[in-house]
Amino acid sequence: MSARVLIVDDVPANVRLLQALLEAEYFEVHTAMNGAEALDAVQRVKPDIILLDVMMPDMSGFEVCRRVKSNPLTRYLPIIMITALDQPEDRIKGFQAGADDYLVKPIDEVALLTRLRSLVRFKFLLDELEGSIGDELLLDTRLENSEHEPGRVGVLLADEARHQQMLQWLGQEHSLQVFNEPVALLDAVRNGRLDAVLLEMPLNGHDALRVCSQIRSLEHGRQLPVVLLMDQQAREKLTQALEICASDYLLKPVMLEELQARLNIQLKRWRYIQRLRENVRQSVTLSMVDPLTGLYNRRYFSTHGRALVEEAASRGRALSVLVMDLDHFKKVNDTWGHDAGDEVLCEVARRLQKQVRRLDVLCRVGGEEFVALLPGADTRVAQQVAERLRRAIADAPVRITTDNGPVDLNITISIGLAGYEQVNDSLETLLKRADEALYEAKRSGRNCVQVQRAA
Amino acid sequence: MSARVLIVDDVPANVRLLQALLEAEYFEVHTAMNGAEALDAVQRVKPDIILLDVMMPDMSGFEVCRRVKSNPLTRYLPIIMITALDQPEDRIKGFQAGADDYLVKPIDEVALLTRLRSLVRFKFLLDELEGSIGDELLLDTRLENSEHEPGRVGVLLADEARHQQMLQWLGQEHSLQVFNEPVALLDAVRNGRLDAVLLEMPLNGHDALRVCSQIRSLEHGRQLPVVLLMDQQAREKLTQALEICASDYLLKPVMLEELQARLNIQLKRWRYIQRLRENVRQSVTLSMVDPLTGLYNRRYFSTHGRALVEEAASRGRALSVLVMDLDHFKKVNDTWGHDAGDEVLCEVARRLQKQVRRLDVLCRVGGEEFVALLPGADTRVAQQVAERLRRAIADAPVRITTDNGPVDLNITISIGLAGYEQVNDSLETLLKRADEALYEAKRSGRNCVQVQRAA
Repeated sequence: MSARVLIVDDVPANVRLLQALLEAEYFEVHTAMNGAEALDAVQRVKPDIILLDVMMPDMSGFEVCRRVKSNPLTRYLPIIMITALDQPEDRIKGFQAGADDYLVKPIDEVALLTRLRSLVRFKFLLDELEGSIGDELLLDTRLENSEHEPGRVGVLLADEARHQQMLQWLGQEHSLQVFNEPVALLDAVRNGRLDAVLLEMPLNGHDALRVCSQIRSLEHGRQLPVVLLMDQQAREKLTQALEICASDYLLKPVMLEELQARLNIQLKRWRYIQRLRENVRQSVTLSMVDPLTGLYNRRYFSTHGRALVEEAASRGRALSVLVMDLDHFKKVNDTWGHDAGDEVLCEVARRLQKQVRRLDVLCRVGGEEFVALLPGADTRVAQQVAERLRRAIADAPVRITTDNGPVDLNITISIGLAGYEQVNDSLETLLKRADEALYEAKRSGRNCVQVQRAA
Repeated sequence: MSARVLIVDDVPANVRLLQALLEAEYFEVHTAMNGAEALDAVQRVKPDIILLDVMMPDMSGFEVCRRVKSNPLTRYLPIIMITALDQPEDRIKGFQAGADDYLVKPIDEVALLTRLRSLVRFKFLLDELEGSIGDELLLDTRLENSEHEPGRVGVLLADEARHQQMLQWLGQEHSLQVFNEPVALLDAVRNGRLDAVLLEMPLNGHDALRVCSQIRSLEHGRQLPVVLLMDQQAREKLTQALEICASDYLLKPVMLEELQARLNIQLKRWRYIQRLRENVRQSVTLSMVDPLTGLYNRRYFSTHGRALVEEAASRGRALSVLVMDLDHFKKVNDTWGHDAGDEVLCEVARRLQKQVRRLDVLCRVGGEEFVALLPGADTRVAQQVAERLRRAIADAPVRITTDNGPVDLNITISIGLAGYEQVNDSLETLLKRADEALYEAKRSGRNCVQVQRAA
């Protein structure tokens, strides 16, 4: 992994030391000697991560951190604070300023590189997701603020006494779930019931790293925050833990404020990733849906239709296509107006939807034109389905709302049908035949089903 | 990193050996003893990667590989073939079956773990992208086939003679671009002009790994295939190369067929990732657009509007909102029909769009209702803009097409305006005031602009 690192320190010797270390690991290093330069470099260089000294003459590292984190555009840019201050209160101050991690001089090189890589991985994941979501949704997703929502935190510690203490410590702020066995914890992760996990290491009778890596093997666990509470003796396994699976760690004795701060940072990131994913997913779905009727739209039809034809071709599975068109729909619009026309379209969509299976694909592809793809249905079966669809519209009037109260309209549809028949059938040839059949249905008096076989 | 690994081998001792190695690294291991079991486990276990022995009694590893890779649902599941066969032809056979890599027994443990991690990282990136795109688009994206398209391959080798050879080797199949300096190569990557890079190591006068890591620091270079052509002596740097930046490597002397095969695998993956990204991006954009007019839709309006109000609040930047409604639009629909109404809406949208700046946000939020967000514009400026918009519609008739030829209609709009005024203004309060102003504009005769200030 390579990345752009911004080193901020007012002491040239410190900068050179870190720079040499990081360049030997093939990171691309940029430097700044004070707060103003740092803020400028953030805009100009667009670093993937910042290593930030706390004590600087013009502007403290805490202040630089606060400014970077309060700008929505750089809110999730990872920052590691580096300092000679080793009092717990200083660490807390760093976290309160929004730092993602806090290392004390002299720097442990392995620890630094490990944290750096772990935070850069997170940054790259964000970049990928933010790139998908694009400018249209990004700013809003960043602004949504859920920082202080309680999290569902799974806890697996070495003994009952610690569990009790954790409940006392975090039970107010978060919804804690205590586990006595890894199996139950993994189950909760598998079902998406947790937003974070606190894991003690060593763990009575279990290998904490194994548990942690099992969490990572689960779909819902891949990015889930896992915070390790480690014995000083377990420290030698720290690098491995961070490489394999841990999101963060605290060395015992644990300080409540630091635990809260680190947990909240993890939860904040987790929620942001969830929001990004959710917004992207929602967009993809919306881009496939006809806003008026809620049916799939033409885009989904062509996308999914091609896949279904490919499947019919490769697996020899039956496939039928119905093209449906409301009869004399222009008259409805002309007589009763556009809103009434929309009401009719929505009611027709609802009735059609009720008559097809979950795996069938029903789309509104144009004004009053609908298409259904019926995988697994040969022409004979599809004909029965089509007849059912036709009757679902014709058998009961559609009620519309007018200024003079409700009015019942008799609506009918004509349906053209074509089935997958030959190896060189494509979505286009199927549609063409179904369109010909629809034309035939219109010509022969409407409100009926016609089938067109391949020539 | 942890992941689910499926080991397939008919010799129990081999399975145990690999299993012990991988479990010590905290991978989740599943095993299969023959081809049938392997294919079953692929469906059941959903591994992140397969280690596949070539020589098995019932079904060869080549055949298992072919089957996995020919199923669209598992086409991009990484497979490492492991074999005692060490002839170059066997390697080629493996790649032709679709394998992602090919290791010869006895297994070099470090090499195995490095390749495994690198392929798992690729798999996780795919999972993330495929998760975003969801079932609606996934199958289709997988089916799109661009495997044999030529790639734009950047080449930076140690000397001119090698460049000539490479042009001879790959110049037919791909579009090769030869570079003599890293700077020019990096420039091509920065501008998205390459689909893959071939890099020799060592490189005359340059550190190949540095070049490779610089590629990775560029936005367009992060996932770009970079294949190293390495001296046997450079081998010791192999692990570092794969960890930091290389997508794949070949040891010299390079065999043309293997180079082609490895390059094509890289290009295939790269294109799939590009397609996934493109389809997601396109979906997000489409989900924000009104299909009739091409303007932004209500979803984008609320998303982006909230962000702009937040910005106005936090940075003290002016912001105005215009709500616009076509006058007597129902009459157009009733007299000239729905299609004519659509024509009018499209022409109105075009004229409005011409009158606003790029950073203004113009949306169609309902039937004949439009909204414009004008960041940086105070009420006075916004009033001028609104007046311009009003005249852009009223000053020239809108031409529609009818069965009896073109008809010119006189169309007008009424506009309500509200500006961001106070700290507790929200998108909702702004809209409410603009709506009140619009009501006033309608009441006072239409085709005019009204402003509503906060009470």
